Amino acid sequence: MSERKEFRDLATVEEAHAAIESLDLDPGTETVDLDEADGRVLAERVDAGLDVPGFDRSALDGYALHARETFGASEADPATVTVVGTVEAGQRPAVDLDAGEAVEIATGAVMPSDADAMVAVERTDRDGDTLLVRTAVTPGENVMAAGADIAAGERALGPGTRLTSREIGLLSALGVDQVPVRAKPRVGIVSTGDELVRPGETVDSGRGQIYDVNSYAVAAGVREAGGEPVVYPHAGDDMTEMERALREAADECDLVLSSGSTSASAVDVVYRVIEEQGDLLLHGVSIKPGKPMLVGRLGGPGSGAGSTADSDGSDTQPASDGSAYIGLPGYPVSALSIFRTFVAPAIRRAAGRADPPSATVEGRMAVRERHDEGRHRLVPVGLVTDGDGETLVYPVDKGSGATTSLVEADGIVEMPADVTYLDRDERVSVELFSPDVRPPTVFGVGEDDPLFSRLLDRLDRPRYLGHGSRVGRRRLRDDVPDFAVVSAAEEVETGTELGGWTREWGLVVPAGNPAGIGGLADLVDRDHRFVNRSTTSGLRTSLGNALADLADERGVDRHDLVDAIEGFDFAVESHESPARRVVAGDADAGLGLRATAGKLGCGFVPVGEERIRVLANHSRTEKPGVERLRAELDDVGDLVDDRPGFGTADDR
Amino acid sequence: MSERKEFRDLATVEEAHAAIESLDLDPGTETVDLDEADGRVLAERVDAGLDVPGFDRSALDGYALHARETFGASEADPATVTVVGTVEAGQRPAVDLDAGEAVEIATGAVMPSDADAMVAVERTDRDGDTLLVRTAVTPGENVMAAGADIAAGERALGPGTRLTSREIGLLSALGVDQVPVRAKPRVGIVSTGDELVRPGETVDSGRGQIYDVNSYAVAAGVREAGGEPVVYPHAGDDMTEMERALREAADECDLVLSSGSTSASAVDVVYRVIEEQGDLLLHGVSIKPGKPMLVGRLGGPGSGAGSTADSDGSDTQPASDGSAYIGLPGYPVSALSIFRTFVAPAIRRAAGRADPPSATVEGRMAVRERHDEGRHRLVPVGLVTDGDGETLVYPVDKGSGATTSLVEADGIVEMPADVTYLDRDERVSVELFSPDVRPPTVFGVGEDDPLFSRLLDRLDRPRYLGHGSRVGRRRLRDDVPDFAVVSAAEEVETGTELGGWTREWGLVVPAGNPAGIGGLADLVDRDHRFVNRSTTSGLRTSLGNALADLADERGVDRHDLVDAIEGFDFAVESHESPARRVVAGDADAGLGLRATAGKLGCGFVPVGEERIRVLANHSRTEKPGVERLRAELDDVGDLVDDRPGFGTADDR
Repeated sequence: MSERKEFRDLATVEEAHAAIESLDLDPGTETVDLDEADGRVLAERVDAGLDVPGFDRSALDGYALHARETFGASEADPATVTVVGTVEAGQRPAVDLDAGEAVEIATGAVMPSDADAMVAVERTDRDGDTLLVRTAVTPGENVMAAGADIAAGERALGPGTRLTSREIGLLSALGVDQVPVRAKPRVGIVSTGDELVRPGETVDSGRGQIYDVNSYAVAAGVREAGGEPVVYPHAGDDMTEMERALREAADECDLVLSSGSTSASAVDVVYRVIEEQGDLLLHGVSIKPGKPMLVGRLGGPGSGAGSTADSDGSDTQPASDGSAYIGLPGYPVSALSIFRTFVAPAIRRAAGRADPPSATVEGRMAVRERHDEGRHRLVPVGLVTDGDGETLVYPVDKGSGATTSLVEADGIVEMPADVTYLDRDERVSVELFSPDVRPPTVFGVGEDDPLFSRLLDRLDRPRYLGHGSRVGRRRLRDDVPDFAVVSAAEEVETGTELGGWTREWGLVVPAGNPAGIGGLADLVDRDHRFVNRSTTSGLRTSLGNALADLADERGVDRHDLVDAIEGFDFAVESHESPARRVVAGDADAGLGLRATAGKLGCGFVPVGEERIRVLANHSRTEKPGVERLRAELDDVGDLVDDRPGFGTADDR
Repeated sequence: MSERKEFRDLATVEEAHAAIESLDLDPGTETVDLDEADGRVLAERVDAGLDVPGFDRSALDGYALHARETFGASEADPATVTVVGTVEAGQRPAVDLDAGEAVEIATGAVMPSDADAMVAVERTDRDGDTLLVRTAVTPGENVMAAGADIAAGERALGPGTRLTSREIGLLSALGVDQVPVRAKPRVGIVSTGDELVRPGETVDSGRGQIYDVNSYAVAAGVREAGGEPVVYPHAGDDMTEMERALREAADECDLVLSSGSTSASAVDVVYRVIEEQGDLLLHGVSIKPGKPMLVGRLGGPGSGAGSTADSDGSDTQPASDGSAYIGLPGYPVSALSIFRTFVAPAIRRAAGRADPPSATVEGRMAVRERHDEGRHRLVPVGLVTDGDGETLVYPVDKGSGATTSLVEADGIVEMPADVTYLDRDERVSVELFSPDVRPPTVFGVGEDDPLFSRLLDRLDRPRYLGHGSRVGRRRLRDDVPDFAVVSAAEEVETGTELGGWTREWGLVVPAGNPAGIGGLADLVDRDHRFVNRSTTSGLRTSLGNALADLADERGVDRHDLVDAIEGFDFAVESHESPARRVVAGDADAGLGLRATAGKLGCGFVPVGEERIRVLANHSRTEKPGVERLRAELDDVGDLVDDRPGFGTADDR
């Protein structure tokens, strides 16, 4: 075993926040064109440089004159003036007014300089150039004075204003086409670990290689928080290469995030580089997931270890002299949890962005959740609306190593270190991953099935966990999902049937069936490598039933048959997995569907048919998402028929 | 007067929505790199192309072996095996297991193919190569099987999924680096009107030119809704040029918005072009603001007028044959209201984005709002939190021609055509301009003052309307703002004083005071052109008081003095406006502050000093924003002293 860095004195969550607040991430300011300023944050106040409107503007159609011409005028006793010209909008007034004169003028046009009021056309009578004015107006009446919208010298927008279409409208009105904004904090992302491979390249699974999840996911998170991500070329576990990458990132960025391998040796190397190249303020936080978080500063050439930050943030250093540093845990779920909880707020602050508006929903726990450890815990949870429109909250825990839980959860419930459990029906507050997260319209659990998988594409924002018939049934009994998809090979004890279909199952074998496998009996009697499905799968239950029938036929114990099948006990995860093992040459036969064999170009030895049924939670049959599902199930025939290999179509 | 297009048969709001829904804005799909996929919407489902993890992975540190080696083993009765090698994470297993053998293996490492289970190191005792296993494990135990996170062939993400950091994490895990997404709808923006000038260029106010507000503001709105704006070069009112611009935009875009002049002739030209080049589905909507909205289609070369859409949207035409068209009103507030209410939802639909989550707040009307007309009305409103934390809603109505109301409002209250008023204290629902709009931390109304304007820069998200002392006092009495800033020249009847300062006022004159103006008496006795402030301003009140003193001194009526001052009655909008008119040579003297004269390099003839006081709403003195304001007012001396020309500093 490799030696591990132990995190003995774990910092509290509050200490971690304080350490991050003590970092200097200030990106300074820059000037951008107005047409690229949307979403940016003003670095300084903007005062109006001119009057808007820039001229005294007529507010209606009528006649411009000097108000004194109308003093004393009324409906019965009009004043008489002479019309000496016309001004349209967009024209320079070409007339001068003398006493007793008026100018015909359109809405929005420039007032002649000698006129100070407008009379509405409706209040006049005209005969040739002679105008009777049947009302008195005061100076300025019906005129939008220059600067009445905003006047030169007035404060238009304050520093820190986030620019949206509305502010861009006001800046346009002021003729501003260059805007001083806060620069986006540059956030360098350095991934480490020999086994990581960037998406798009080829992984060698045999060597234990996996795709680098964190780099692009964290980069997207940086962008969402208002930062500018810079993803550096992948650094392996080589100390020199990693040092070079970190140093380059520290020179170029306001914050460096390292993120990478969960392997102990890689963590150790990062740890050592930071200790040698900067200050480590904090290593290890009492939080789950996310314990191995690091916080510190990466020095420029001259800086070294020794100084430590006060938690009040008084000890900062200029950005030019290196950068802030935060080490994220390697597991993706941990890395993104820590990023969201600790790093994103710091990036938003540096970008001058307000924290997003309350993205918290209240709900009640659908199940009891225990908490064994004395660490502050961030529990990823999913949301589902029950039949009464109330929000139910259920934990999504597939382990930090799983990436699917990233998209199967909607937010986080925090469990402080001294909380030992959340009870079923307890009210909890869920911090959504973002304010626009909404619960799925419909949520189901159950059998992994290719036809149903395609049906999901016809629904709007569904969530479906293909964890097998057995899990679906159990969770439906617990009242968590809206529906379960189950194989009818087992007894149905709960739920309202919405619909279903029949699928043909059997043994998927190499194309042409080179071993000449004829059925289950050959698996028992001959020496074939078999691949099974997990016990939660309906297919596995059907296989068990078929073997029981074979045992009855032979008058032997079912277990003897099972023991005779090589690989019966080592099950794989999805409906395609056994077939794919056959394709890869790792097995001679796999449990599967005719549809799958067809899709993957394999041979197929039919064994039986099974009915798949969709069962709704009794109390949610009127939920719109469930009604929509029922309607799609009524048309399930489309899916069976429109692509060979699915459902009962014979396509071998 | 020019002839106007009359909108006799105004469409209802519902008909306008239906007409827009009948338009085809579908932008199709495109493929983007994963590191640019953030925020985009999946065009098709993505299935896992490989197993994650890609290999059977050890879930703990210990020994890999065949489970059958441990059958029957227990603490007391261990099984004995021989250790034949080691596998670290990231290594290819280099050993084969025979019966009775085990391999030492790290967390995350690849399981040797002959092993099917892991024994935790804590459950073993080792002596050289001899290992005692003190527990029984089942096949698969402590192994994360290949595909346990997600298996090849499983549905990973559905069509229509909006990609955030979490989905990008999952796609990374699958090794996907190219993502099929919905293209962004291309939205062409054509602005029309001879008098419009793009920001950054020079306006000729004398000709009635104004800056084009709508093009960049609408472009930002398009981007916020998920579209790709294309701003076309400004088309004047020239029919040929406008036709060319619209045709080019129709060829290149999914939707064309024209937006521009409020002048009747420009509207007429747009109207004619659309009628000749496409189909006009709708002209004029019974909504305020926004009545002159147009909806239609711009044809390609072959298309013509004649066809009309059913309101059920059944009549659509292929995008290649032209584009959808919406004509926005010319006034910015109207244009953005119509954009937000009708156009943004259509762009979001085309982009595959969900409507933003509920951005609606409930509040009560701070004042009564009347509604005279029979049109559906979108009332821009501002929000302020009262002392009890309740949201107050007040109308922001400076007329559609004003651009400042864009940033002085937070959202919209809808008043259906048959509603005649909203009562004070009536509960209303406010549709926020965006979900992240929050009420200002503090809201004030009152005197326009340069020192206070700078103090605002020290507050977080303040809102201040410099509408003058009189308006400030009145609105504070009405209980709308948190505070008012007033000149103490008038009696103070309400509010808790938070602080204040003294400012020196007088006559701003050209540099060097060429006319040798000595004081107010010279304005009365000599023939100078004067510029006043509006009657709502405290400065105007101070001037009135000083003139009353002069009248007393001379034993004449105050009105005689006022009548003798040329320009006394034509007031301008902000504290700098009179001084700027002096600088421009349009006046010989302007009412103003010493600070303003200093800033603009003018001469200054002192007349008096006045005290400016900040008065808080009695019931809101403990509101955090008000407390923060009070604290800044305690330090107001900093602002007086740190820049020459402000406050009482003598800098002439």
